[in-house]
Amino acid sequence: LRTVQAHTGAAELGPYRHYMHKEIFEQPRALADTLEGVEAIAPDLFDGLGEQPATAAAVFAQIDRVLILACGTSYYSGCVAKYWLEELAGLPTAVEVASEYRYRTSVPEPRTLVVAISQSGETADTLAALRHAQSLGMGHTLALCNVATSALVRETALTYLTRAGVEIGVASTKAFSTQLAGLFLLTLALAQARGRLNAAQQAQQLKDMRHLPLALQAVLALEPQLIQWAEAFAQHEHALFLGRGPHYPIALEGALKLKEISYIHAEAYPAGELKHGPLALVTSAMPVVVVAPNDALLEKLKSNMQEVRARGGVLYVLADADSHIRSAEGLHVIRLPEHYGHLSPILHVVPLQLLAYHCALARGTDVDKPRNLAKSVTVE
Amino acid sequence: LRTVQAHTGAAELGPYRHYMHKEIFEQPRALADTLEGVEAIAPDLFDGLGEQPATAAAVFAQIDRVLILACGTSYYSGCVAKYWLEELAGLPTAVEVASEYRYRTSVPEPRTLVVAISQSGETADTLAALRHAQSLGMGHTLALCNVATSALVRETALTYLTRAGVEIGVASTKAFSTQLAGLFLLTLALAQARGRLNAAQQAQQLKDMRHLPLALQAVLALEPQLIQWAEAFAQHEHALFLGRGPHYPIALEGALKLKEISYIHAEAYPAGELKHGPLALVTSAMPVVVVAPNDALLEKLKSNMQEVRARGGVLYVLADADSHIRSAEGLHVIRLPEHYGHLSPILHVVPLQLLAYHCALARGTDVDKPRNLAKSVTVE
Repeated sequence: LRTVQAHTGAAELGPYRHYMHKEIFEQPRALADTLEGVEAIAPDLFDGLGEQPATAAAVFAQIDRVLILACGTSYYSGCVAKYWLEELAGLPTAVEVASEYRYRTSVPEPRTLVVAISQSGETADTLAALRHAQSLGMGHTLALCNVATSALVRETALTYLTRAGVEIGVASTKAFSTQLAGLFLLTLALAQARGRLNAAQQAQQLKDMRHLPLALQAVLALEPQLIQWAEAFAQHEHALFLGRGPHYPIALEGALKLKEISYIHAEAYPAGELKHGPLALVTSAMPVVVVAPNDALLEKLKSNMQEVRARGGVLYVLADADSHIRSAEGLHVIRLPEHYGHLSPILHVVPLQLLAYHCALARGTDVDKPRNLAKSVTVE
Repeated sequence: LRTVQAHTGAAELGPYRHYMHKEIFEQPRALADTLEGVEAIAPDLFDGLGEQPATAAAVFAQIDRVLILACGTSYYSGCVAKYWLEELAGLPTAVEVASEYRYRTSVPEPRTLVVAISQSGETADTLAALRHAQSLGMGHTLALCNVATSALVRETALTYLTRAGVEIGVASTKAFSTQLAGLFLLTLALAQARGRLNAAQQAQQLKDMRHLPLALQAVLALEPQLIQWAEAFAQHEHALFLGRGPHYPIALEGALKLKEISYIHAEAYPAGELKHGPLALVTSAMPVVVVAPNDALLEKLKSNMQEVRARGGVLYVLADADSHIRSAEGLHVIRLPEHYGHLSPILHVVPLQLLAYHCALARGTDVDKPRNLAKSVTVE
């Protein structure tokens, strides 16, 4: 494995002990940078910058489905986008783990927009999956990437560059949230191209997006409560993360962060699957995190929550401002400051990043360079 | 939660201590029953038995993709089928967790065969997901089910009844392998309908399927080696399961079995994702199971395996007859008796069932009625 290093230097840490902590707190600025200069939703936000660039307006007119290819954290951002693309743009969307897609016999559909996501743009499996799709005749490709000079950008027809800035912590944070912002803009542009976004809706969506940096600041201000959660969490070797809809991939990402830097064995499930197996694992040794941006999920989980409680399991719930759930014995609730509609996943991932970071701190691990992992996986 | 009980009775256990053990060993017979009377691949194997039955020949002519809806173990059988359906029948296939599909806004595609899988045919989320698909105008539906009188069979246009017989152990075993057999027959029938299965191929595929019961017997004979693995496994609270292609869902199913009955926190990953996070978890406390029906996967995992070994992690590999990997310090290999091509997932799940069973025995859990779980989840 080779670690791709960008300009490091302790000086840049400023008041932070770790790059990951700094990068978590850079997210409001990264999101603001992402939206800077976006006056309106238009296809040309996605025009190509590679060796054979295409114009997005032309490509968008020729596609009627989406295939997203990625690995790790980028794969989870693609999983969130599936919910957005199907609901808002009306485009059937498949998301595939790049290392799986490249080796299996699939059915190519030429009228597909192939979106390859990678922070570095050099992830070996993602590049190979992209080339595999191209070799099957799927030429409508888009790179979602944080590095303008990367192979991924060179080899795709369309480009969206996230403006996360250099990310040094191995566990991705601001790259993920800016990927989500880019994917939401892509969803809006595709919705517009398909006549599903009128001027008023466009104005409202952009207004909501522009409020994101402020909303993120308010979420970051929850850090003291997450430090408290982390104290209890850090004692355990297991955790279960539950979510539903676009918050299921957020649960996956939260579990991955915890795995990567605190070495706690955290696993995520779609909440409805709890009764189909993982409920057997729940004891006082396995806390359960629920990403629950509205009460409907909690309503459905009520009987399970009672079982979790009966077995000594402790629940940690990330709820919304308008949620009616209250903390109680064995039930810890943090309310996010506002309900955020479709953009809610971008807010809900932040407390999970903070939870993982403070668990790692409490456990004394090497936060920015977790054992066994490289920043960019440039080999198979 | 309500437990749906079929005829029980200790007498039926025969020489077995648990229903689950008995049911694992009933799989050769269940597979033979499934194939009994199947003289040739023909659409009428799937003709409807419900309230508004359709003929499969008519339905197969009107579909050009597949959507599979299921929960838990049945969801994993659907995930295996995706690989088969795309490769052999050339049909793009999506597999969705029923509790997710029913609540999200998706894009209905009327020329889709909607396959709902449930052992009992009464799984609440699967029924609701089916009805949701129907309400969106997707009328080409097929039930894959073990109970002829179930709601799922009544409410679908086409039917495939697995012949697993009554399954009493909460952790599904023979229901899963007969679902796989049914899904493989469905793949062949759809391939035939689309001109992708000539007479010679049909004869060969049927011959391979008819050999399954014998091949399964040979796999069951590996039990002593799995008892040895279980002795080491039962000491741990964690496990990682890796697979690639159609053996990734088998790794998922193996991990689920271990969770359900031994309460070991087992988690599965597609092998290529190991470097994107879970590798950080590997220590001597977390054994790694690799479902590797050929050497290609092991070749690719070689550098990871060295890292696993360097951290004291122990590898347990299920390899094929013609595999070149040999047991060594920290590397345990069990070779399956034969290489089985497309049907290999049906064989590879069996050692994982036996591993879970013997881990549970070693840990003294209630194998047939694991804590918190019901046989059929008939509530949300």
